[in-house]
Amino acid sequence: MGLIMNLDAQWITGFVDGEGCFYVGINPHPEMKLGFQVLPEFTVVQHERDVQILHALKRYFGCGVVRKNHGDRMAYRVRGHGNLTERIIPFFMKHKLKSKKRIDFERFRRVTIMMERGMHLTEDGLADIRRLADEMNRGRPR
Amino acid sequence: MGLIMNLDAQWITGFVDGEGCFYVGINPHPEMKLGFQVLPEFTVVQHERDVQILHALKRYFGCGVVRKNHGDRMAYRVRGHGNLTERIIPFFMKHKLKSKKRIDFERFRRVTIMMERGMHLTEDGLADIRRLADEMNRGRPR
Repeated sequence: MGLIMNLDAQWITGFVDGEGCFYVGINPHPEMKLGFQVLPEFTVVQHERDVQILHALKRYFGCGVVRKNHGDRMAYRVRGHGNLTERIIPFFMKHKLKSKKRIDFERFRRVTIMMERGMHLTEDGLADIRRLADEMNRGRPR
Repeated sequence: MGLIMNLDAQWITGFVDGEGCFYVGINPHPEMKLGFQVLPEFTVVQHERDVQILHALKRYFGCGVVRKNHGDRMAYRVRGHGNLTERIIPFFMKHKLKSKKRIDFERFRRVTIMMERGMHLTEDGLADIRRLADEMNRGRPR
């Protein structure tokens, strides 16, 4: 669409306070020792008319994908330990969210630290992560 | 609680790109000559857990009210020609929205200019405003 949209860090923080989601999926996965895979992801969903914003976020963070979500919605989604711990999390450590979504972000961050220590591969650690994930995902928007 | 939340202009712009709404109500009103009152309003709705953000917006703009909306939702709402044309509109003229909500903002602004010229008091003007309002309110969130 012609002009590149450049984003400001504070604009991103405000937009994510409204539209972002920090989510930890815990999915059955037969090849994992405990039978489950822990999958943290950061997503921003928008109506397709604003897909340009999602591409601008992807360019800003230098990671993630923009894909079709449901119906006329598109999603910017970041998965992968390296992307989350080296790009997404440091950004929101520096530019603090102002909404209560910040509590979800802190839980999200705790899960990634626990995974770094391999705690998701132990029964107790997985139970702790599940508890954190339940607390976070409860308020999942829409 | 306690600490006052200070907002940054770019943060507000990002947050309103996600959560704000520029709306023009056209309501039956027997005391108006044409039988209708044109009521432009700027609103931001949040879950009550984030009511602090709404109060911070009210403080930042120096106008509007924070009220209960539906269920567990609260709304920051600005009405009144002076508030809109002297505080809200100049802010978003200076700090441009990045989402397609900017198109609604431009229509909203046109309606306030038309009202300044008294066009909402003529049949033709009211019809024009109604058309603009229909275009804007179509994409009204939630």
